[in-house]
Amino acid sequence: MMSSLSYTPLKTGLCYDVRMRYHAKIYTSYYEYIDPHPEDPRRIYRIYKILAENGLIRDPALSGIDDIGDLMCKIPVREATSEEILEVHPKEQLEYLEKTQYLNRDELLSKTELGDSVYFNNDSYFSAKLSCGGAIEACKAIVDGKVKNSLAIVRPPGHHSEPEVAGGFCLFSNVAVATKNILKNYPDKVKKVMIVDWDIHHGNGTQKAFYNDDRVLYVSLHRFELGKYYPGTIHGQYDQVGEGKGEGFNCNIPWSVGGIGDAEYIWAFEQIVMPMGREFRPDLVIVSSGFDAADGDTIGKCHVTPSCYGHMTHMLKSLANGKLCVVLEGGYNLDAIARSALAVAKVLIGEPPDELPAPDKDPKPEAIEMIDRVIDLKSKYWKCFKRQITNSNCEYKGPISESFFAKKFPIQDAIRAQQIQYLTNDYNMVPLPLMNSNLPEDTVMCSTDILQSNVAIIYVHDTPEIWSKRDAIAGVIDSSASLYMDASLQFYDWALDRGYGIIDVNIPQTLYEQDNYSASLTAQEVLIKLWDNNLKYFPNVNKIAYIGVGEAYSGLVHLLGHRDTRSVVKSVIGFVGKKPLKALVPLVEESLADWYFKTSLLFADKNHSCWGENDSKKPRKRYGRVLRCDSDGIFSLIEERFEEATDFIIDSLDEWTEE
Amino acid sequence: MMSSLSYTPLKTGLCYDVRMRYHAKIYTSYYEYIDPHPEDPRRIYRIYKILAENGLIRDPALSGIDDIGDLMCKIPVREATSEEILEVHPKEQLEYLEKTQYLNRDELLSKTELGDSVYFNNDSYFSAKLSCGGAIEACKAIVDGKVKNSLAIVRPPGHHSEPEVAGGFCLFSNVAVATKNILKNYPDKVKKVMIVDWDIHHGNGTQKAFYNDDRVLYVSLHRFELGKYYPGTIHGQYDQVGEGKGEGFNCNIPWSVGGIGDAEYIWAFEQIVMPMGREFRPDLVIVSSGFDAADGDTIGKCHVTPSCYGHMTHMLKSLANGKLCVVLEGGYNLDAIARSALAVAKVLIGEPPDELPAPDKDPKPEAIEMIDRVIDLKSKYWKCFKRQITNSNCEYKGPISESFFAKKFPIQDAIRAQQIQYLTNDYNMVPLPLMNSNLPEDTVMCSTDILQSNVAIIYVHDTPEIWSKRDAIAGVIDSSASLYMDASLQFYDWALDRGYGIIDVNIPQTLYEQDNYSASLTAQEVLIKLWDNNLKYFPNVNKIAYIGVGEAYSGLVHLLGHRDTRSVVKSVIGFVGKKPLKALVPLVEESLADWYFKTSLLFADKNHSCWGENDSKKPRKRYGRVLRCDSDGIFSLIEERFEEATDFIIDSLDEWTEE
Repeated sequence: MMSSLSYTPLKTGLCYDVRMRYHAKIYTSYYEYIDPHPEDPRRIYRIYKILAENGLIRDPALSGIDDIGDLMCKIPVREATSEEILEVHPKEQLEYLEKTQYLNRDELLSKTELGDSVYFNNDSYFSAKLSCGGAIEACKAIVDGKVKNSLAIVRPPGHHSEPEVAGGFCLFSNVAVATKNILKNYPDKVKKVMIVDWDIHHGNGTQKAFYNDDRVLYVSLHRFELGKYYPGTIHGQYDQVGEGKGEGFNCNIPWSVGGIGDAEYIWAFEQIVMPMGREFRPDLVIVSSGFDAADGDTIGKCHVTPSCYGHMTHMLKSLANGKLCVVLEGGYNLDAIARSALAVAKVLIGEPPDELPAPDKDPKPEAIEMIDRVIDLKSKYWKCFKRQITNSNCEYKGPISESFFAKKFPIQDAIRAQQIQYLTNDYNMVPLPLMNSNLPEDTVMCSTDILQSNVAIIYVHDTPEIWSKRDAIAGVIDSSASLYMDASLQFYDWALDRGYGIIDVNIPQTLYEQDNYSASLTAQEVLIKLWDNNLKYFPNVNKIAYIGVGEAYSGLVHLLGHRDTRSVVKSVIGFVGKKPLKALVPLVEESLADWYFKTSLLFADKNHSCWGENDSKKPRKRYGRVLRCDSDGIFSLIEERFEEATDFIIDSLDEWTEE
Repeated sequence: MMSSLSYTPLKTGLCYDVRMRYHAKIYTSYYEYIDPHPEDPRRIYRIYKILAENGLIRDPALSGIDDIGDLMCKIPVREATSEEILEVHPKEQLEYLEKTQYLNRDELLSKTELGDSVYFNNDSYFSAKLSCGGAIEACKAIVDGKVKNSLAIVRPPGHHSEPEVAGGFCLFSNVAVATKNILKNYPDKVKKVMIVDWDIHHGNGTQKAFYNDDRVLYVSLHRFELGKYYPGTIHGQYDQVGEGKGEGFNCNIPWSVGGIGDAEYIWAFEQIVMPMGREFRPDLVIVSSGFDAADGDTIGKCHVTPSCYGHMTHMLKSLANGKLCVVLEGGYNLDAIARSALAVAKVLIGEPPDELPAPDKDPKPEAIEMIDRVIDLKSKYWKCFKRQITNSNCEYKGPISESFFAKKFPIQDAIRAQQIQYLTNDYNMVPLPLMNSNLPEDTVMCSTDILQSNVAIIYVHDTPEIWSKRDAIAGVIDSSASLYMDASLQFYDWALDRGYGIIDVNIPQTLYEQDNYSASLTAQEVLIKLWDNNLKYFPNVNKIAYIGVGEAYSGLVHLLGHRDTRSVVKSVIGFVGKKPLKALVPLVEESLADWYFKTSLLFADKNHSCWGENDSKKPRKRYGRVLRCDSDGIFSLIEERFEEATDFIIDSLDEWTEE
């Protein structure tokens, strides 16, 4: 051991070649000149320049020289060979692109028109081969032990290029071609490759190249928005897990909203990418490194900071003994991509990542939910997620032995069984049968004193939520540590004190294995029947306050639009929680919408989707008067707003009295 | 920008001084010479040597020279000043140690005898001041911008030294003294310090120094075993969160078992240490780096590999812009500490950590549960844990407004209400009242045909578990997605088919806010009463099979020890799950234990604590015949072993018939 007197860490490799700037869009108007195509030749130059400006490389003339100093070392770029490209793309596709070298301007423009977001000039094919060859060489230098890791500043990008068709500014599928050739040429050294694609777009091309390949774990984080964001196909959805031997080796983490930033990316890396990477144990990690999730990119509209790119790079360095190749993909704000690439390069040479900026907000709930969903889905394939307590899903996954068919009992029924007990014993309530209905006879209960009351509180509710504790090992809920709180009783105590009558309407939510049941339609049916047929049995009731809780509230809005209840209904309270808002559709008379706005008070979750990006956004009038609460969850809303709700009801009844 | 033509990364600082080897235990026997005290002067030499052997430093004579090459730079070690030490330790303690310089051999030995695991010679005070001064200088060099990070190879260690008393091989509280002085002398640059203590022992000294200080986040991972492991005080428990301003800034992650390895440490870092560190945003991170959790350390008896130390170092480098100071604490296997320190040093200089070895087993359930518990507790103080879906605990944390007192309904009662419905309607069962009992009248139900049967199946059970789904944002359980499966019905269908009578005994588990209730004692009471008073009403019953499910099973064992049931009880099935095993105490006759072993078949969770480290370990005979299942959780056990259990019952009944 004493012989190795000095330890010499390998340098970081760098691929850059000015000839990749030859590929450019042919201007057809002055407008294109002043506002160039986003996939702009300057992209790679600006990255190279910032590395030089910060002393990571030495090239005073920025001409792409070979000797670039002590920290990084130049990896010569060459054209990918046809043989290499054919590992991914069929011959027809290679020839299709080859021909662009010889087309005239009109032919090039017409080919540009025909394609899916790709442009061509006579140098496109050459630049694309260099870009692809650069990616191959950047990987090769690592595997050959010439560099410890590498950064390939290449264009045109590659990850949207599917084997059979170019698209999304991409000609050859650079990372896919590099991966296939490394796997082929280094069968002993590289058996498994992990590709992490943090470009803001889904890498449909790369995914397709390895969809049934268990040697390649492809992980993509991207905007998706139910397929509305480019490339906008179902292939970017989280449930696309790979096929055949590749099942489980494709992992999409699609963001359902824009505006994603550091908090969500770090969270996804820590909860998904890193545990899965450690379990996969790749021999090489390649990053499809678009910088269009960067703060300032007008296409990505996300907020990832340079230090976050540094942190993600730092995390990935802990896989595969640090064998990490970062290959440029998209990213269109020239300043943002330069600063992001600089942060990545610093971490590659061995510097710690800069501290993340202090977060100005929590991760978006949509992202937390998606990460949770991905973990749940992937727990089928990866042990790290099975044991993960992050998995909040304790659902029954079906019997382990086929001979054992246990009957399932919904907790909702158990809770209703108990509610009936105390509504009967403690609140002196009795069932109120609905005519012509197949619903359980305990659906509607009413207090017996309602016959003497002239005010009725009609409380329409879902089953209460449960507070509980999950067994960390067995993954089930401990029933002895579970409870629910029935907030209706708060209202009933209050109402009985004031001599009001009560009607309790129970609307179970969608049940297991009962696909044709709709809580919303059931609530509509019950409330209409109650209004049309039953209320007349209570001749003294001339003032009603409705309280709708959870999804059941939507049935209330339906009733108010379909019957003219104004002479009797004095106030409408809704505890909407996270359920969708429902607009009143005034079938009876237009002015109902105004009346509804004045008469209603609706409480929605702090994180209800209606609030959107901007807090100042307000739902329109026909949704009623909707307030944003400080908490989430039905019970918390009621706890927070009980007094406000009951005050509102009392005021509405009093006003009526004074008239 | 172009002016900085070359970027020069700072080096890693190294503290080492041979004079810290002067502190040594005075031999009092030949035995101590051949098996020296584990806190051995060679510890720091062996670490220094391996760094030189691997070329990280250049010092051919290993004499501790100043110029050590290009990768690391020497930080000169000096004695800590009294003023510095007095920032943590009181004057009396400083003087107590100072005096050891002048004591004679007998006085030193007697002082060694008196202390809590500390020894003294005349150089101890000097070495301890160097060790403490080394820790200060290692931190100072980072904050002064002279090095990017640093490694302090110092001894004696410090983290067990409490301000008022030395202990656990530690004289001065090195890391605490360094931290206090950095905070004092760099008020602008360093406002917050995070101390990560991965020594296998709890750092009681460091914790105490900052227990009410919100400027210092102290995180310790250590063996604890309910205080049985050194230092063995309650201060190492997970619920010690800090006091006053420091509340929330002390984080203990105590392992309840030995044998912890990479999987658990990486999991704890990823789930707790890193999210909390990012939220705390320290200006400096100090590692109290004992290497006694290393594989091969006979004191720690854990299995952390050198690469895992590298990975933890790598993760911590992503905090505080990489300002990381690693200070040696314990670690007693000379080879293991050298290899571990080498892995840490490589990551400090900028190399990626080596890949973790392929795990040969899953993380221990005890560790997963502890990490879960810590996250739950810490979610009170740290936002990252509030939003964490890792938090499997959806418990009700008390009202947010004081005016709102909601009544809580245990789900157990709801489930029993529903069970009564179907046991009555579908199984023709009726309540069987217990004499002189305050228990609910639905506690025991029996099938009416039991009057005609000569076989009774007595099924004693907890409330079934729940399968469910947690709302990722509001943190509550969605009741509409919750269900339970009542495995008793599987047995009842089987029993009724065979013409057996059924007795159903429901034993709720410990309930919310009902501290004096014990499920185990209730089960005992019910089963004894049933045996003494009720079974005589079924004159035809002369064969009984008991089935005990969950904690209720323990009541069964009690009955079998306290009554001689042998002439009637033919088999005893237990689905123990994760509940503690209960030994039969044969009050009636010694031979009952043998009979119990022959008559019983008990199914325990795959991860039941009784299996211990070694699969071959078997519970003793008086615990009955206990089998390890392939799954965890009561329902899964029944699903897995239903056939085996019913076959066993049938066999036991047949055997009896043949006699």
